[in-house]
Amino acid sequence: MSAKSTTVGALPGPVRLVPLPGLPEVEPGMDLAALIRDAAQRAEIELASRIVVIAQKVVSKAEGRLVRLADVTPRDEAREIAAAHGRDPRQVELVLRESRRIVRRGHNVLITETRHGFVCANAGVDLSNAPGEDVAVLLPEDPDASARRLHEALSTPAGPTPVVISDTFGRPWREGLVDVALGSAGLSPIRDDRGSRDRAGRELLVTQPATADQLAAAAGLLMWKSAGLPVVVVEGFAFEGDGTVREKLLRDPATDLFR
Amino acid sequence: MSAKSTTVGALPGPVRLVPLPGLPEVEPGMDLAALIRDAAQRAEIELASRIVVIAQKVVSKAEGRLVRLADVTPRDEAREIAAAHGRDPRQVELVLRESRRIVRRGHNVLITETRHGFVCANAGVDLSNAPGEDVAVLLPEDPDASARRLHEALSTPAGPTPVVISDTFGRPWREGLVDVALGSAGLSPIRDDRGSRDRAGRELLVTQPATADQLAAAAGLLMWKSAGLPVVVVEGFAFEGDGTVREKLLRDPATDLFR
Repeated sequence: MSAKSTTVGALPGPVRLVPLPGLPEVEPGMDLAALIRDAAQRAEIELASRIVVIAQKVVSKAEGRLVRLADVTPRDEAREIAAAHGRDPRQVELVLRESRRIVRRGHNVLITETRHGFVCANAGVDLSNAPGEDVAVLLPEDPDASARRLHEALSTPAGPTPVVISDTFGRPWREGLVDVALGSAGLSPIRDDRGSRDRAGRELLVTQPATADQLAAAAGLLMWKSAGLPVVVVEGFAFEGDGTVREKLLRDPATDLFR
Repeated sequence: MSAKSTTVGALPGPVRLVPLPGLPEVEPGMDLAALIRDAAQRAEIELASRIVVIAQKVVSKAEGRLVRLADVTPRDEAREIAAAHGRDPRQVELVLRESRRIVRRGHNVLITETRHGFVCANAGVDLSNAPGEDVAVLLPEDPDASARRLHEALSTPAGPTPVVISDTFGRPWREGLVDVALGSAGLSPIRDDRGSRDRAGRELLVTQPATADQLAAAAGLLMWKSAGLPVVVVEGFAFEGDGTVREKLLRDPATDLFR
């Protein structure tokens, strides 16, 4: 399926979510696009005109976004927060460094707004699946730029390969984690259905599916951490357009009721 | 694939999202399970051991959850809110009837906590895709019970058919809509990975993917309102357990930082 053949309103066909096996443990400096291309070739999984959803963790590792906790000196505020919530002050220090501001504290969780503008627990700073017990993994510096580099490296004359970089976030009001898009390239992260009509002919005013988040959540069905499958190839989805998560999916604080 | 053959930790295979064509316009009193079964048979789509994700709107219509706006007399509070935000006072009245309380007002949106416990815009009261311009569609009385009835009616000796009822919700901090689960039956709406270990052998403490929400979001890729495809069949996903959205996915207000 070519992206160019897509018309909005055409009936969608089946979509396949294919986990990519055989990716090695990713280390700083590795060429992640080459690793994905090789793994796909070995598994005979086509990438042209397919979307690749990649878990943030492997992108961060490839980009060297790792910090040894032994090298972190917590500021007073980090010590105070850590003491109040039973946390490691060095991890809290990293959370503060990665954040513009604290949104909520409590229930042993620290919700912050990251430098990128994501609102999430611990600014995405994670200890699980890090290479050593004392190493923290930070979010990529610019996940949209990371997605763009991977998109360009994976696309071929046979067809473009849009990339979505995903992470698992908690949500207000609901239990459990769902994957959302941190970065995107090669597709529009939001589908603008405004101006189209429902089946009764009325104009749809607010139907804007967050495509990149839907893709991240769908891929998340196959990305349990214990399975170690951080890349999912999405076949058959009629992507279109282009755009970044930062510009298209992060809500303007001025129109946000929950800052 | 049988749910019984599933073991947590087994590597997942591809998942297919298959839109169900040929569903007629649903009207109150129709047997939705029979309509889905017949449409699947005509399209030669297997339902046994597959998950069926159904858009809330058709469930509500089949259950007769329709209100003619002409029959609604707004209370003073509804008139006041409607005037302040440029809304139809009769729709605001319905939102108030469906809600326990208002969570936020502003930006031409009314965020409430519904009688079920969902926090969403307009208590899910919707005018689009309703049978007439002056008819509002309300959420099902008990979406978990709706899912349970459909699950029981669709399951056969050949295999169970878990059901997720989905709706598109906005989110704090992010633009666009993503589908979430309003009700579930025949699968656990959340996967409890706590106690399993990451690839370095460390225990995973907080990884609880909200499976039913991931399924809803994935199905949402194929449910643009203009396409009129409110049912998606999910093949190849290793579901397990059982449980309701109300019990498993709605967060206890006592541990919620955003009420």
